[in-house]
Amino acid sequence: MSSIKLAVIGGGSSYTPELIEGVIQRVEALPVSEICLVDVEDGKEKLSIIEGLSRRMVEKAGLNIRVRATLDRREAIRDAHFVMTQFRVGGLKARARDERIPLKYNVIGQETTGPGGFAKALRTIPVILDICKDIEELAPDAWLINFTNPAGIVTEAVLKHTKVKSIGLCNVPIGMQYAVAESLNAKPEETYIEFAGLNHMVWGHRVYVNGEDRTQEAIAALIEGGSATMKNIIDTQFSSEFIQALNVIPCPYHRYFYLKNTMLEEEMKSSKTEGTRAEQVMKTEEELFEIYASPEMDKKPEQLEKRGGAHYSKVSLNLVDAIWNNRKDIHTVNILNNGAISNCAPDVSVEINAVIDSAGAHPITFGAMPVELNGLMQQVKSYESLAVEAAITGDRHKALLALTANPFVPDANVAEQMLNDILEQNKSLLPQFS
Amino acid sequence: MSSIKLAVIGGGSSYTPELIEGVIQRVEALPVSEICLVDVEDGKEKLSIIEGLSRRMVEKAGLNIRVRATLDRREAIRDAHFVMTQFRVGGLKARARDERIPLKYNVIGQETTGPGGFAKALRTIPVILDICKDIEELAPDAWLINFTNPAGIVTEAVLKHTKVKSIGLCNVPIGMQYAVAESLNAKPEETYIEFAGLNHMVWGHRVYVNGEDRTQEAIAALIEGGSATMKNIIDTQFSSEFIQALNVIPCPYHRYFYLKNTMLEEEMKSSKTEGTRAEQVMKTEEELFEIYASPEMDKKPEQLEKRGGAHYSKVSLNLVDAIWNNRKDIHTVNILNNGAISNCAPDVSVEINAVIDSAGAHPITFGAMPVELNGLMQQVKSYESLAVEAAITGDRHKALLALTANPFVPDANVAEQMLNDILEQNKSLLPQFS
Amino acid sequence: MSSIKLAVIGGGSSYTPELIEGVIQRVEALPVSEICLVDVEDGKEKLSIIEGLSRRMVEKAGLNIRVRATLDRREAIRDAHFVMTQFRVGGLKARARDERIPLKYNVIGQETTGPGGFAKALRTIPVILDICKDIEELAPDAWLINFTNPAGIVTEAVLKHTKVKSIGLCNVPIGMQYAVAESLNAKPEETYIEFAGLNHMVWGHRVYVNGEDRTQEAIAALIEGGSATMKNIIDTQFSSEFIQALNVIPCPYHRYFYLKNTMLEEEMKSSKTEGTRAEQVMKTEEELFEIYASPEMDKKPEQLEKRGGAHYSKVSLNLVDAIWNNRKDIHTVNILNNGAISNCAPDVSVEINAVIDSAGAHPITFGAMPVELNGLMQQVKSYESLAVEAAITGDRHKALLALTANPFVPDANVAEQMLNDILEQNKSLLPQFS
Amino acid sequence: MSSIKLAVIGGGSSYTPELIEGVIQRVEALPVSEICLVDVEDGKEKLSIIEGLSRRMVEKAGLNIRVRATLDRREAIRDAHFVMTQFRVGGLKARARDERIPLKYNVIGQETTGPGGFAKALRTIPVILDICKDIEELAPDAWLINFTNPAGIVTEAVLKHTKVKSIGLCNVPIGMQYAVAESLNAKPEETYIEFAGLNHMVWGHRVYVNGEDRTQEAIAALIEGGSATMKNIIDTQFSSEFIQALNVIPCPYHRYFYLKNTMLEEEMKSSKTEGTRAEQVMKTEEELFEIYASPEMDKKPEQLEKRGGAHYSKVSLNLVDAIWNNRKDIHTVNILNNGAISNCAPDVSVEINAVIDSAGAHPITFGAMPVELNGLMQQVKSYESLAVEAAITGDRHKALLALTANPFVPDANVAEQMLNDILEQNKSLLPQFS
Repeated sequence: MSSIKLAVIGGGSSYTPELIEGVIQRVEALPVSEICLVDVEDGKEKLSIIEGLSRRMVEKAGLNIRVRATLDRREAIRDAHFVMTQFRVGGLKARARDERIPLKYNVIGQETTGPGGFAKALRTIPVILDICKDIEELAPDAWLINFTNPAGIVTEAVLKHTKVKSIGLCNVPIGMQYAVAESLNAKPEETYIEFAGLNHMVWGHRVYVNGEDRTQEAIAALIEGGSATMKNIIDTQFSSEFIQALNVIPCPYHRYFYLKNTMLEEEMKSSKTEGTRAEQVMKTEEELFEIYASPEMDKKPEQLEKRGGAHYSKVSLNLVDAIWNNRKDIHTVNILNNGAISNCAPDVSVEINAVIDSAGAHPITFGAMPVELNGLMQQVKSYESLAVEAAITGDRHKALLALTANPFVPDANVAEQMLNDILEQNKSLLPQFS
Repeated sequence: MSSIKLAVIGGGSSYTPELIEGVIQRVEALPVSEICLVDVEDGKEKLSIIEGLSRRMVEKAGLNIRVRATLDRREAIRDAHFVMTQFRVGGLKARARDERIPLKYNVIGQETTGPGGFAKALRTIPVILDICKDIEELAPDAWLINFTNPAGIVTEAVLKHTKVKSIGLCNVPIGMQYAVAESLNAKPEETYIEFAGLNHMVWGHRVYVNGEDRTQEAIAALIEGGSATMKNIIDTQFSSEFIQALNVIPCPYHRYFYLKNTMLEEEMKSSKTEGTRAEQVMKTEEELFEIYASPEMDKKPEQLEKRGGAHYSKVSLNLVDAIWNNRKDIHTVNILNNGAISNCAPDVSVEINAVIDSAGAHPITFGAMPVELNGLMQQVKSYESLAVEAAITGDRHKALLALTANPFVPDANVAEQMLNDILEQNKSLLPQFS
Repeated sequence: MSSIKLAVIGGGSSYTPELIEGVIQRVEALPVSEICLVDVEDGKEKLSIIEGLSRRMVEKAGLNIRVRATLDRREAIRDAHFVMTQFRVGGLKARARDERIPLKYNVIGQETTGPGGFAKALRTIPVILDICKDIEELAPDAWLINFTNPAGIVTEAVLKHTKVKSIGLCNVPIGMQYAVAESLNAKPEETYIEFAGLNHMVWGHRVYVNGEDRTQEAIAALIEGGSATMKNIIDTQFSSEFIQALNVIPCPYHRYFYLKNTMLEEEMKSSKTEGTRAEQVMKTEEELFEIYASPEMDKKPEQLEKRGGAHYSKVSLNLVDAIWNNRKDIHTVNILNNGAISNCAPDVSVEINAVIDSAGAHPITFGAMPVELNGLMQQVKSYESLAVEAAITGDRHKALLALTANPFVPDANVAEQMLNDILEQNKSLLPQFS
Repeated sequence: MSSIKLAVIGGGSSYTPELIEGVIQRVEALPVSEICLVDVEDGKEKLSIIEGLSRRMVEKAGLNIRVRATLDRREAIRDAHFVMTQFRVGGLKARARDERIPLKYNVIGQETTGPGGFAKALRTIPVILDICKDIEELAPDAWLINFTNPAGIVTEAVLKHTKVKSIGLCNVPIGMQYAVAESLNAKPEETYIEFAGLNHMVWGHRVYVNGEDRTQEAIAALIEGGSATMKNIIDTQFSSEFIQALNVIPCPYHRYFYLKNTMLEEEMKSSKTEGTRAEQVMKTEEELFEIYASPEMDKKPEQLEKRGGAHYSKVSLNLVDAIWNNRKDIHTVNILNNGAISNCAPDVSVEINAVIDSAGAHPITFGAMPVELNGLMQQVKSYESLAVEAAITGDRHKALLALTANPFVPDANVAEQMLNDILEQNKSLLPQFS
């Protein structure tokens, strides 16, 4: 176990340079000897650009890390220590459809949590299960670090249907940690938030700075919206009274759940002006790849910040570090509940603080989710578990029940219409439904 | 224990004649010697009309039952064997407001399950707890049979905050039983439905006729909508595919949850034409009381059928019969869950089949609520438990969280506006919030 | 479904005449047209005697019931409506060994609950699973009514490892009902006991006569030991204070758990004088079969009473009646817990009151087992579940853990010695361990 | 919060010098400014000796720590940051009785887990609750670090009946860690054991050295008994097969549960020769205090090792360090289960690995206790919870049920006799039972 092989599935992603930078920065702690970037035929060109940039970055750092790009996923997975997944089935075009379809029905078009995320789950789960079969065969001791959204649902599919050691990741909790720290004039590394909930629906239940409970100050800061960062992450559209009543830190995505009307209106408007988020990202991506392709470029370009995904590499490589070096650090991850949230089913995925060591992620016991949060958590969890079943069986009935259970969907009739639309527009990408 | 005293709180209700008729019909099984009708000052006149009619009915039947009307609730409760509650704090005027307020915010204005029902719960719970104090003092062995809506929430308040022996009732399950029986050309008494869920959100999980499982036929009948009764009770606005996917019998109120858009549209339309349900009922009531007042009238008038509340007396007196005569019959009631639905909190009220005997209601173990139903059940249960807390504490924050958790309410901002409206318009009836 | 076929596995048992008598008595309610008695080669002779007696009994009653004896189990099971199991693998000789082995190690030698019952479970479970395979193939709609001990363990094996509809039975609860009724000068049919626990370790938590709670009187009667029957069933060796402290009605077998020392002493003594229970029963059996064989004998002989097993036919045929006629009666049965006892695992067998109808047994929700009973229940349940695993896998380690977990076994060293002895002495009957 | 006040209840204990040594060694991490040793009138002399030795030790180390001895408990507790309890109600004489009484009834006389520990719990709980009242009033932010046995039961009493922030401690897990490490030729600090169970009944479920799973090797070493330390801690009286079957690391006290016969025999023998453990310790104590009293003695004397209680100061001061410095270290502690062991009641104490920081102890989710361990755990937990109830209410019935539930007690009759003996011999120390 003296050197690490990383396999990056979806290696042609515009995020990859951040990952490469992270590897370079952690060279002391993480003896990476090989990074194998995989992508599909369609992403060949981008993959090649990323490969070039990555090599230049490694070279500049003077490191002896072999960077390879391949379309042969099995080759990449073979003997890997960590398989990192950040792929997007159908690419940004599919995402654009995911965001547009719901809007036709006056429903929020969000790519991870609404019907859009549902479509994405249907496309993604069969692929990740295929990847897991390869891991089981070719690298049975490898850790699967999944970033592919909807991360909570994808992780649950892997936990329930494979034997692969797997952890789901998201940059939302770390973003909240940084924002809350800033609002309290504290250092992020001294700020600890007790997180528990679901992916993209996680609450910060208590905030500690150097062990001191500063939850009430953090909530007050959230209400005042004094901190620019805080505003950015958790917008002040929440009323003061609601935040006071809730008395925990919501995550940015909670706006979609607690402020449905407002968010739908905003989405509607922007979809008519600057386009949906996917449509905007497509442009950013184009620009990014032009920059990446330049033979002079040998570092992570500043323009990547615009793309979002802040802390992405920090979150994933800190996790790799904690596993590889048996650190027993605490990270917020998507894993099997196993009773950590006592009134949630034990066999589902939750997003929760966990001690990470070489044996994996060990959730810190949270106890019962309070009644004022439990209803929403249970509703979303039911939707997620149904989405896993639908994706795996290709059963239309399960899909309809999943979509009806989704809190963004007002109505079973609307669910049925959207389902038809989703299945139609994703036909070639959803073989399990044909 | 040779003869029974019934106390009827809200005795001036237009439903009372049905109850009287039921008592008369069951004279062999239920040796009722006294019926004490109580109401508040405002309902004095109606109470007197009901008293007159009731006495004429009893006299006509040649029975020796003392019928009394009083404004002194404590006198009525003293030494009663059964206290039946069917009162409405604020009367139909309050109900009309409950139905109108949500519509202003594009939200379903339903008197029992939405924000309307929430307002009703806030008004009702302090009163029922007062009644319970009287029972604890004056008739500690009495059974409280509660029909007052929202029956699930009111029952939970009583279970959690008093020592009174209490069972909540609703005529929805028996209505479903009759409709399903008709759709299968079976007799209602030979038709058994496995019910489990919450009040006004109960599902029929399996249907048996004389022990034979005919669930699939009942679902097919529901889809075809062949039976007139079935149509009436569970409207065919559900799509065939949705019913097939759900694969259980929804209750009529499920339309509000599963078909929110359609139901809102309909309500909006009728509120502008024939008025809300409360406004229509007010007219019916007026007519009814004119008929009741006639000295010639000595039976339950046929016009009462129009009022709704079918089977109301059957449900409540069958329960009284099962308790008094230790029958061990199975009825569908609102009681403490106690683990009967294993993935629901043990200390909340559920609507479920239970064996009824002199010791009370013993729920039949249901097991885990299936994932496709659990999300909605949990969401509504959380709302209900929060509503109980809000009603008891008068805490605005709890009230806001309750309303936000209600599935009809799209948004915390909307919840806040509606809460202001509800508290304002019910000011004199909600002393706990002042 | 106009007439019933009963298959009786272990039909050569001396108990069978009681069953035949029961069928004859219930001819109005239960249209039995065929009784098929099956046994193994070794029991051929007894089977033939029982067949003869049964036919004479049916004939005398003037009934048209075909009584058949066969060694072909599959033939008997084919198209049966009810399969009743009362067989004993290895016969009374094996039982005698079961009772003798523990005594060598100063451990209670009880045929159902201690190491003796463990040995019996190891022998029985593979056979019952074979029977279930036949039922799944040849009579998939049949009900398996299991009387074979240890009934709780055998039932759990069937529930966990087959798809057969199955209910486990025991005559202990009905015996307690009769004894308690007598002690209260009440009729058994008016006496209702709330039973919950495990097989041969069930408690009567509350006692009602015609709906009136008379638990405290029943406990007082138990302490006074005034009733002869009560003495017989639940011996007064319990101290007054212990019964008062326990405050529920223990079952006769609880003496083995709560009065280990006394019971061991008694067993030791009687094993040296009149022999173990099995050894005594062997003699009774011999006498019985002589009587049965007489061509004049055409009814259940009185001498059968001595054999024990009172109410055996009542319990099993009442159950058959409740299922066949969809009665929704309440009986005490061994079935899947499914949350009925909320602090017990959901997927194990418990002995509990249940509503019985054509769809099977529906346990009445009990709630949490009180802490003063829960420890013992959990310990015995763990032992039982481990015994099922051991019997099915033939894994010596599981067997050792099961035996160590048994409350009669003081010590892992003793468990190991007894296990060696059990496996050695049952070698030919435990193929799974070879 | 710049300097720490420690209050040590039972400060006259012979263990105190180890604690003082520990404080001196940790002076960098723990800025202790005051150590207040409290004891009762009877322990005045010893307390004075300990005070003298402690002052000489602090002086020798050149530290500015104020060491005080007092009989005024409230004074000691006022404004303390940590209250450490290591007192023994009734002293070693009471312990000697605890150990002798059970032996009269052929029952293991262990001072913490059997009837002896039960007597100790009855004496200790009222006193610790009094201490907690003082803490609530005089130092509401203080942490109670309890070492007083039976630590699991005492901790549960504090958790259930006070608001004091409290953690129970035991040196058994650290002893196992050291022994297992030695058996694997690993460093203790690189050896991590997944502990979960109850106090003095905790299992090591998995063993990791630097993140590598070496559980099977540790079990093999245990079987071979190759390591002297291992032998000492977990004696080889366990058979190889039993340890293989169990497949986890038992704790030393498990011998009393799994090897009852052997242990009882040994105790019987030694009680007749060298005396019970308490009787031996009395002699050691006398010698120790002679040494302590010498004005030349200014360090922890080597003879203390003989007394037992290895790692005692390490365990408690590491915990104080983790709390004070918000370290998020993992320690094995006795705390509220809260769902960490999912099939154990949530509101009871368990012994489990937990993350320790300034907000307290956060148990790491363990999941369900495996069936082969669960029976014993549940039985002992029931006993412990009943013992808490008995100690608090002084209810003889509860006490009898507790004692009957204890796995060392064979029989309710024996329990009753022992209870009489315990209450009689502890009369003046058990006011709640008079």
